[in-house]
Amino acid sequence: MGYGIIGITGKKISLLSLGVIKLNKVEGQALKLKNIFEKTFSLIEQYQPDELAIEAPFYGKNVQSMLKLGRAQGVAIAAALSRSIPVFEYSPKKVKQSITGKGGASKEQVAAMLQTLLSFKDMPKHLDATDGLAVAMCHYFQRNPGIEKKSYSGWNAFLTENPERKG
Amino acid sequence: MGYGIIGITGKKISLLSLGVIKLNKVEGQALKLKNIFEKTFSLIEQYQPDELAIEAPFYGKNVQSMLKLGRAQGVAIAAALSRSIPVFEYSPKKVKQSITGKGGASKEQVAAMLQTLLSFKDMPKHLDATDGLAVAMCHYFQRNPGIEKKSYSGWNAFLTENPERKG
Repeated sequence: MGYGIIGITGKKISLLSLGVIKLNKVEGQALKLKNIFEKTFSLIEQYQPDELAIEAPFYGKNVQSMLKLGRAQGVAIAAALSRSIPVFEYSPKKVKQSITGKGGASKEQVAAMLQTLLSFKDMPKHLDATDGLAVAMCHYFQRNPGIEKKSYSGWNAFLTENPERKG
Repeated sequence: MGYGIIGITGKKISLLSLGVIKLNKVEGQALKLKNIFEKTFSLIEQYQPDELAIEAPFYGKNVQSMLKLGRAQGVAIAAALSRSIPVFEYSPKKVKQSITGKGGASKEQVAAMLQTLLSFKDMPKHLDATDGLAVAMCHYFQRNPGIEKKSYSGWNAFLTENPERKG
C-alpha cells in the first residue's frame, strides 16, 4: 500500500513524503488493517493534509481481493474522516492519464513522469509508492485544470527528451 | 448496514442494541462512509464493547459492490481499531449455521431464531439488523462451544414448536 504526500505553496508543488506501508510480514488481515490505520493516522498527524485522494479500481482479480482492498482503503479513509479531512477518489485510468496523458501508461512511465514533475532524486524501490503519489498529483491537477493541461503537453516534451520511456 | 450489540453476564446473554445505519438518503459514498464511521464510533463509545465481529462474504454481485462493501466494513473496523478492540470475521454460511444449524437458512429463519434466543418482543423492520445481531451471536457461540451445541438442538426444538418457519 503506497502513499505520497504533496504540499502546495502558491503554484509550487513539493514532495513531502513518499513510501509504502509494508504488510507482507504482518500476519492476519486484522493486524494488517491495524497497521494501515495507525500508519495513515500518524501520517495525517504529522503532515496535517487538507484532503485525501484514493484510487478506485473498477476491475479486480476477484471479489475476495476487492473486499480486502476495500477494507484496507476503508481504514485509511476512516483515519482521514476522524480528522474531518474530505476524501476524493479517481479511477486508475484517470490517474495515469492525468500524470502522463495516457490512460494505459505503465507504472514505470507514471513513476518517471512524477520524478520529472517533482524533481526527486532517488526512485523508490516499490512502485506502489509512486502509484500512491500519482493519485495525490492527479487530485492536484483535477483541482487546477490549467496545470493539468500543462502536464499533458509535459508528457510529450518528456518523451522527446526521454525516448526510452515510450511504449 | 445492520448491527447488534449483546452483553454477556456469566451464562446470560442479553440484547443491548439492534438497528441499522440508514444510508439510502445519504448522498455520495464519502458521506455514507462518514456516517458509518461516526455511528459505529458512537455505538462503541456508548456500549464499550470488548470485541467486534463482522461478516466476510465470499461472493458478491460484482467487484465494485465488493469494493464498496469492503470500504464500509473498513471504516467500521477502523472505529474498533481506534479503541484497540479486536476484530473477528465469519462467513455468512458460518453465521447462519451457528444460529440455526443450517448454513443455508433464510434471513427470516435467522431472525426468528434470534428472537427466541434473545427474547426480544418486536421484530425489527429491517432484517439487516438481525443479520448484524446474528454475527455477534455467532461470535459468542464460537467463543463458547458448549453453548453453540445447545443452540443447534435449540433450532430443532424451535422448528417443532414453530413448523411454519421450516423450509
